[in-house]
Amino acid sequence: MLIGVDAGATSTRAVVLDHTGRCLGTGKAGGGNPIALGPARAGRGIRDAVAQAVHMARATDPDHPEWDPGGALRGRAVLAMAGSNAFVAPEAMAGLISEVLPVGRVEVASDILAMFASGTAAENGYVLVAGTGAAALRVEDSEVAATADGLGWLLGDFGSGFWIGHRAVRAGLAALCGYGPPTALGEMLREEAGLPQGESRVPRGRPAALEAAVEIFYRMEPVELSRYASLVFQAARVADPGDSGQPVDALFRPDADPVAVDILTSAVARLSATLRAVRSPEVTGPVIIGGSVAKRLPGLTEAVAASFSDDGMARPEIRIVADGVIGAGMLALRSAGVPVDETILSRVRASFADLPR
Amino acid sequence: MLIGVDAGATSTRAVVLDHTGRCLGTGKAGGGNPIALGPARAGRGIRDAVAQAVHMARATDPDHPEWDPGGALRGRAVLAMAGSNAFVAPEAMAGLISEVLPVGRVEVASDILAMFASGTAAENGYVLVAGTGAAALRVEDSEVAATADGLGWLLGDFGSGFWIGHRAVRAGLAALCGYGPPTALGEMLREEAGLPQGESRVPRGRPAALEAAVEIFYRMEPVELSRYASLVFQAARVADPGDSGQPVDALFRPDADPVAVDILTSAVARLSATLRAVRSPEVTGPVIIGGSVAKRLPGLTEAVAASFSDDGMARPEIRIVADGVIGAGMLALRSAGVPVDETILSRVRASFADLPR
Repeated sequence: MLIGVDAGATSTRAVVLDHTGRCLGTGKAGGGNPIALGPARAGRGIRDAVAQAVHMARATDPDHPEWDPGGALRGRAVLAMAGSNAFVAPEAMAGLISEVLPVGRVEVASDILAMFASGTAAENGYVLVAGTGAAALRVEDSEVAATADGLGWLLGDFGSGFWIGHRAVRAGLAALCGYGPPTALGEMLREEAGLPQGESRVPRGRPAALEAAVEIFYRMEPVELSRYASLVFQAARVADPGDSGQPVDALFRPDADPVAVDILTSAVARLSATLRAVRSPEVTGPVIIGGSVAKRLPGLTEAVAASFSDDGMARPEIRIVADGVIGAGMLALRSAGVPVDETILSRVRASFADLPR
Repeated sequence: MLIGVDAGATSTRAVVLDHTGRCLGTGKAGGGNPIALGPARAGRGIRDAVAQAVHMARATDPDHPEWDPGGALRGRAVLAMAGSNAFVAPEAMAGLISEVLPVGRVEVASDILAMFASGTAAENGYVLVAGTGAAALRVEDSEVAATADGLGWLLGDFGSGFWIGHRAVRAGLAALCGYGPPTALGEMLREEAGLPQGESRVPRGRPAALEAAVEIFYRMEPVELSRYASLVFQAARVADPGDSGQPVDALFRPDADPVAVDILTSAVARLSATLRAVRSPEVTGPVIIGGSVAKRLPGLTEAVAASFSDDGMARPEIRIVADGVIGAGMLALRSAGVPVDETILSRVRASFADLPR
C-alpha cells in the first residue's frame, strides 16, 4: 500500500492507494507543517490524517493483497509540504516524520510539486499556487527547474491570500475612517474584526475604529491577515467554485464592490507575472493552478493563457486542482516504480472522488 | 530650570533652558521610548540625555538664579514621545518616567506635537513627520485636532522609512534575481545585507541570494527594514541636507537610479496625501515638516505647497525642522506659564545652536 500526504499549515490530507492507482481511503486533520507548527503538533496532524485514511482503506477492502500480513503499515509514504523545498533539509524532515508516522519509508516532497502532480502526469510544465502564500514552478523531468516568488509575506507572496487580506484591511480601514475611497470592505471588516461603531473621535483626533484596529491587528501574526481575503471575494460577489476545477469567469457582476474588484484584478496580474518569471520557450506542458485563492480568482486562467499568447507561445492546457493530496499519491506511485500516466491519474482521481467524505 | 526631552526609539535628546528661553545645555543618548524598548532601557536613555544636558547647563552658567539651592533638579520637564498620543495613558507614562527622572514634575506630550513646536510658536497649523514611521497632525489651539496615518508598518506609515526600506529590499531582490527591473539597489542591498555573490542556483531553482535573503530578512523585526531606506537616497543621488532646514530640490540628477527615484517620488505623493487628510479650510497656519526621512525627500515642500494651491488654499509657510527637542523645550516653557511667541522660539533656537556639540 502507498500513502500520499499533503501537509499544509492549516490542514493535512492523506490518501491510501494501491499500486494500480486505486484510492481506498482518505483522511483530513489539522495542520502538519513542522516549520509552521512545531514537530509535535505537525506530527499529530499527519498521524491523524493517515490513521483516518488507513482506517477507511481497511474498511473499503480488508482483503486487499497489498496489506501487510501482520497488520503493520509498512508501505511507502510521500509527504508533501512547504518548506521542504527551501528552508529545511529534506533528510531532517523525513527523519522527524518517521518518528510520528510508523510506515516503512517516508519521502518528503515539495507541496507545489505535489500540486503539479495532482493535475497532470506530464514530466514537464508549470504550476502556479496561491493560498496563504504564492509561488510558481517550472517542472522539468518531474523536478523543480525554476521557482518564482514563494518569498513569504514580507518579501513577496504577491497575489496571495496574505497579499489580498492585507489590502482588504488597509482599504477597509481607509474607508471606515474617511481617508480612502468608500468600499463595502469597511463595514465587513468592522464586523469581522469587532471594531467599534460610530463616528466618535478619541481626544487626539483619531477615529475610535482606527485606535481599535491598531490594537487588534498588531496583536496578530502578520500572515494571519490572510483570513480577510475572504471578505474581498465576498465584496466582489465572486461565487466559490468549490473543488469543481472550473475556472471563475473574468467578468464581475455589476453589483461587485469596485475596490474589491481592483484588489482581485491586481492579484491576477501579479500571479500571471509570477508564472511568467519561470516560463521558458523550450519547456511546453500543462499549467496547473492550485490553492484556495487561485481557484477562486476571476479570470486567472484567461490571464495566464493570454500571457502565453502575448509572448508568442502556444496556449497551454490549464487545469485547476483543489490541493496536492492526489499528487502526493501520484508521487508515491512514481517512487514505487509504477509508470504513471494520464490513465493512472484518471484512475486515482476517479477512485478518490468515489470515497466517502 | 526647565527640561525638554525628545525621546525616540533610537535616540533621546534633551535640553535644559531657563524661563527666558535661553538654552544652557543639551544631551543625547540612546532610545527613550518605553513602548519600543521597555521601561528600563528607555529610562536609561532619558536619564543619560538629561544628565548630560544638566551637566552642560551647570558648566555654562553655574550661578544662574534658576538653579535649585540644594543642587536638586526640581524643574518642570516635558517628555515628548511616540505612543503617548494613542496607545499608552499619559498618566501611566508620566508615572513610569518619574521613577527614572528625578525632576519636579514630568508631563508627557506627543512627539509630533513637539516637532510642530520646534518649528513655530503658532497655535494653529499642521505638522508632517516621516522618520521610521509617518503621520500628520492638524493643530488647533496648541492641541491635536486631527491625526492621519501613524498606523505603523503593517497598516500604514505610507512614505516612511519603513515604507521606503521595504520597497528597497523588494526592488533590490527583484533586480538581483532577474524578476524585476535592473537597479543599483540590487548590488547595494547585496553588499549591505551580505547576500552571496554570483549567479549560482540552488537545486530547487532559486538563486542563492534569494535563499539567503529569506533567511536574513525574516530574522529581523519587520520595522528594521527601515534601515535600507538610506540605500534609496544613495542610489537616487540625493545629498543629505543635514539639519540645515533647507528643502531638497525636486529635480534629480541625471545619473540617479530610476527605480530609487520612483520610490522617493511615490513617498512624496503618499506623504502629501497624508497631510491633505488632516487639512481643514478653516485652519490656516504654518506647515512644519520633520523627521529623518522627510527632511531628505526631494520636492516634498514643493509637493505640499502645490497640494494647498490645488485645493484653493493659500500657500502656507513651510518650515523644516530636525527633531522635536526644541519643541519639547517650548512646550515646557508654555507649561510653566511663559507666553511663547516667535521671539522666544528664535531665542531658544539661537541659544541651542550656540551650545557645544
